[in-house]
Amino acid sequence: MTERCDLLITNANAATMDPSIPGGYGAVEDVAIAVTGGRIVWIGPRQELPDCAADETVDGEGCWITPGLIDCHTHLVYGGHRASEFARRLGGESYEEVARSGGGILSTVRATRAASAEQLYQAAEPRLQALLSEGVTTVEVKSGYGLDLDTELKQLRTARRLAQHYPVDIVTTCLAAHALPPEYDGRPDEYIDLVCEEILPAVAKEQLADAVDMFCESIAFSVEQCQRVIQRAKELDLPVKAHAEQLSRSGATAMAAKAGALSVDHVEYISNLDVAAMADNGTVAVLLPGAFYTLKETQVPPVESLRASGVCMALSTDLNPGSCPIASLRLMMNMGCNLFGLTPAEALAGVTRSAARALGLCCSRGVLRAGLRADMVLWPMETPDQLAYEFGALKPAQIYFGGRHVTAG
Amino acid sequence: MTERCDLLITNANAATMDPSIPGGYGAVEDVAIAVTGGRIVWIGPRQELPDCAADETVDGEGCWITPGLIDCHTHLVYGGHRASEFARRLGGESYEEVARSGGGILSTVRATRAASAEQLYQAAEPRLQALLSEGVTTVEVKSGYGLDLDTELKQLRTARRLAQHYPVDIVTTCLAAHALPPEYDGRPDEYIDLVCEEILPAVAKEQLADAVDMFCESIAFSVEQCQRVIQRAKELDLPVKAHAEQLSRSGATAMAAKAGALSVDHVEYISNLDVAAMADNGTVAVLLPGAFYTLKETQVPPVESLRASGVCMALSTDLNPGSCPIASLRLMMNMGCNLFGLTPAEALAGVTRSAARALGLCCSRGVLRAGLRADMVLWPMETPDQLAYEFGALKPAQIYFGGRHVTAG
Ligand SMILES: [Zn+2]
Ligand SMILES: [Zn+2]
Repeated sequence: MTERCDLLITNANAATMDPSIPGGYGAVEDVAIAVTGGRIVWIGPRQELPDCAADETVDGEGCWITPGLIDCHTHLVYGGHRASEFARRLGGESYEEVARSGGGILSTVRATRAASAEQLYQAAEPRLQALLSEGVTTVEVKSGYGLDLDTELKQLRTARRLAQHYPVDIVTTCLAAHALPPEYDGRPDEYIDLVCEEILPAVAKEQLADAVDMFCESIAFSVEQCQRVIQRAKELDLPVKAHAEQLSRSGATAMAAKAGALSVDHVEYISNLDVAAMADNGTVAVLLPGAFYTLKETQVPPVESLRASGVCMALSTDLNPGSCPIASLRLMMNMGCNLFGLTPAEALAGVTRSAARALGLCCSRGVLRAGLRADMVLWPMETPDQLAYEFGALKPAQIYFGGRHVTAG
Repeated sequence: MTERCDLLITNANAATMDPSIPGGYGAVEDVAIAVTGGRIVWIGPRQELPDCAADETVDGEGCWITPGLIDCHTHLVYGGHRASEFARRLGGESYEEVARSGGGILSTVRATRAASAEQLYQAAEPRLQALLSEGVTTVEVKSGYGLDLDTELKQLRTARRLAQHYPVDIVTTCLAAHALPPEYDGRPDEYIDLVCEEILPAVAKEQLADAVDMFCESIAFSVEQCQRVIQRAKELDLPVKAHAEQLSRSGATAMAAKAGALSVDHVEYISNLDVAAMADNGTVAVLLPGAFYTLKETQVPPVESLRASGVCMALSTDLNPGSCPIASLRLMMNMGCNLFGLTPAEALAGVTRSAARALGLCCSRGVLRAGLRADMVLWPMETPDQLAYEFGALKPAQIYFGGRHVTAG
């Protein structure tokens, strides 16, 4: 390491999440972490720390330090809300009745199209702030409530703008193939033409998306339609991911994995062959227990099979106005354990190391290791198991984003 | 009303929860609320507001105002945590294995007995702060991790002390009959003797408890043993409540209701006859979806039957280190809807009007009405349905405790 550093943290323990350190947390007790230029330059047991003159030294006060949390699947830029639909369904109306009277995803599309860029931005702010207060330092944001060129661009630009004003990296994903817009009713292939010929090229040209996503399901698009989107994304040099096998088995997960998708998300209905395809291709399974909970699903993703096959499991909020209006990644860690049977260490890996991988960012973050970004959270807790075990009272004591101290809470 | 008042709030809407106003929320749009001496002195449509000189006027900025939230069932004063047990169970060990090696409730009893009063206080603070940040202004706190005279008193004194330092009313409940302490193994009747002859009289003498609670279940105490506790509480002039029918049907709910219990809590396994007994005696059903969720229970409380019979349904966290380490009453509103089928209006009634009734406090709070306490929360939302629908991003804009503005968040 260099002889001087910007920041040195001691009197703390680290859940590095480094898989080369034994134990699920990659734990280093009595750790020292040296930071320069926004990156970790040294991390290890304090007694092994080389001589080092730090511009700032921080007493960790016995906290546990984790990587900054990463929410790798959100739809947090949208107009309106669906609270009244929620009330109507609990009052006894069926999904179909609500949808027939203009509810469901298309009500969010209408509201998002109608909102100004400034209105979208202001609506997104409290959602983002809620995540940041939990120690989240990287957030993925999808489009997909525009379903036309202008609104898709408006959503993605809004997402990018959030990163200019908050201490967070925003990763954007174009999800134009999210649902069939009403003006293409009965003509899904023509809408996929629009996505492939107009929306994706425009998004690529403006460099507004870091990846391309799609929703493969009977209520959305077919495997063949999704293959066309993947093909076009590849031509535009954009990585892909997919919402798949959430409500039924379609074969989309294996197709996307074989096409090199970074992640396939939801995956409640995948088979062992699908798991094998993910393992073979290094595809991350992004588990979304908040949507499972909100939709009262009963089919859980095959966690034991994913674990046995060595598929990385990420955890995310799926934050969206319909199936998961819940802006809390910490709650997803708890739900990942209680609803899906993850261990607390798997839950923390799911919102750090594996989430980074789901975004193609495992070279820069998700683990506390020399050379990686100094996105770090100090937690006043006795064991990292507390992060998934309890909810509400345990909050970050300190948050560092790129080595810079940002206000917690 | 008086011609002057301390505080006047306008440019807002109110979910008064007053059952004399039609609609589940007792909604008054474009409301005016006048407060003097910590109480509401006038509330109604702004255009009907009499001439009034206010020392302070507040622009509600279009917010919805609700009563301060009431968490009517918590165990938030305790020592230690059970995160490692949580991890062991998710790692594949059974409840029995964990209990045999010293886990379960008795590990919390050991930690609570070993903790100093100051340690208990400091451990409770972040749990209470989490609730207060959500707009909670009244919290019930139970003892029940002491199971001996000194520790039960220590828990209750700690609960009382919290109210001296935070803007909240703390209501205390003696739950000495929570579990059988190890030193009484095999001698539950003798432990009930201790509860009735020593603990309850000492608690009553020091005026440390506002009510007496008990856990009636095969793993805790029998209906007959609980009847003895109720009898003693009545002699000491203390109201009673019970944890009952959470894991199986015992008949305790009907027994407690007929004995005039303020509430029976959990009630997953009650029958229609039990519901009728609650209705006949005005007993509140306190629903605890967080414990249901954490324990992965499948038997939901009979909400339709309770609703049809006119039994008041409260909602609460059950905040405790074993079956619900979740310090969020707002999340319980969401779970009450998603897991138990409450409507959003019933969920809000459950944490206001019905929760006040479960604590015997419906004469002073739980509804926005002239004469009652000015415990109020301003929410930046378009409809009160949002309170149960979404979680995380929607936070109080302002909180008033006894007419006094306290910092939100
Ligand atoms: Zn999604
Ligand atoms: Zn309880």
